[in-house]
Amino acid sequence: MTQEAQRFFINEDQQVLEEILLHRRDVRGNYFKKDPTSDENINRILQAALSALSIGFFQSREFVMIYNNETKEAIKASFQEDNTKSSHQFSDEKQQKYTQPKLEGNTESPLKVAVFYKPKNEPVLGQTSMPNMGKYSVVCAIQNMWLMARSLNIGMGWVSILVPEKVKTILNVPKENQLIGYLCFGYTDKFYHKPELEIKKWDYKKLQNEVVIQERY
Amino acid sequence: MTQEAQRFFINEDQQVLEEILLHRRDVRGNYFKKDPTSDENINRILQAALSALSIGFFQSREFVMIYNNETKEAIKASFQEDNTKSSHQFSDEKQQKYTQPKLEGNTESPLKVAVFYKPKNEPVLGQTSMPNMGKYSVVCAIQNMWLMARSLNIGMGWVSILVPEKVKTILNVPKENQLIGYLCFGYTDKFYHKPELEIKKWDYKKLQNEVVIQERY
Repeated sequence: MTQEAQRFFINEDQQVLEEILLHRRDVRGNYFKKDPTSDENINRILQAALSALSIGFFQSREFVMIYNNETKEAIKASFQEDNTKSSHQFSDEKQQKYTQPKLEGNTESPLKVAVFYKPKNEPVLGQTSMPNMGKYSVVCAIQNMWLMARSLNIGMGWVSILVPEKVKTILNVPKENQLIGYLCFGYTDKFYHKPELEIKKWDYKKLQNEVVIQERY
Repeated sequence: MTQEAQRFFINEDQQVLEEILLHRRDVRGNYFKKDPTSDENINRILQAALSALSIGFFQSREFVMIYNNETKEAIKASFQEDNTKSSHQFSDEKQQKYTQPKLEGNTESPLKVAVFYKPKNEPVLGQTSMPNMGKYSVVCAIQNMWLMARSLNIGMGWVSILVPEKVKTILNVPKENQLIGYLCFGYTDKFYHKPELEIKKWDYKKLQNEVVIQERY
């Protein structure tokens, strides 16, 4: 690409993106197959992450690639403990539904990626008045990974029911780093046609006009 | 789409996505043109947002569409106050560079979108042990908007140097809502070929092997 190149996208490109956005799913543990993903595909997913915004060009993101089963088991154990606690916070009806989606996916998928935010000890451009911007940049990278994986027909699940400090201990993570996402990657024979929690009637899908406000509240 | 459809993406689709990811830029104020974006395009950008994950299917996101110049001016004024404070936190050399990228973009672009996270007063599935997951879901929606806009050849800039509480007052936002992003949308005649802060040597671009860790630290 030359310095002056201005990439112009056409209608077909926009439709491809919309299809990928629409078919991205949060894939649960029971839908992962054991087949490993190729190094080439993993590199494309990581490159997608690195092409995301990093506020102040600070690039405060680190990715731990976990293939080892013992590590996955240890993290799964810390998840289970937390999951029991979490489910008790819901009403009876919701609690029953809560146990339905298999939330962990901690050993089934061949690859886990723990994504960390590494804070800096000096002011970061664009982050002085919104201190969460560093973490949000890491989330932008995760969303890119998700979409790239989906385009490669690889499922991704984002596990958020775990205890970050326990994950950090297991992975020997530097104290200052903060866990943003624990991601599962692998092939799946089931991408749901809609979000699983919508199908299971956890809640209804909101319409655009319910969440869009014109000019001011 | 039928219930059983499993969308399979091919090599060309993956390349389109990679091109969009690679050409996404954080567009600054001075590069926006005045031309309005069509309602159809804006709807496609909003639909992209709504197709993102919402943790626990909670859909805790609200989008304020700002076209009115007075509102933009008021937010810009609150930005300028904060920007003067922010720039003093950097060293002399960095401070000089800091004034170069035009960070506000607050009146030039025809459309601003203020994106809010609306917390819920009850436990949210997937958020009980990682309380930031609700906000991170909103960031996933913003990243989708960014990519959709870029595919439509529309620039987006994420302004993070502002005072969220002042923006909330100007927009009459409910007290519990939290500002996640103040976004500028519009056509641009300049998508940089690289991140602007890389071109301006604010910092160097990190390589994949500098941020990827195998198995554990």
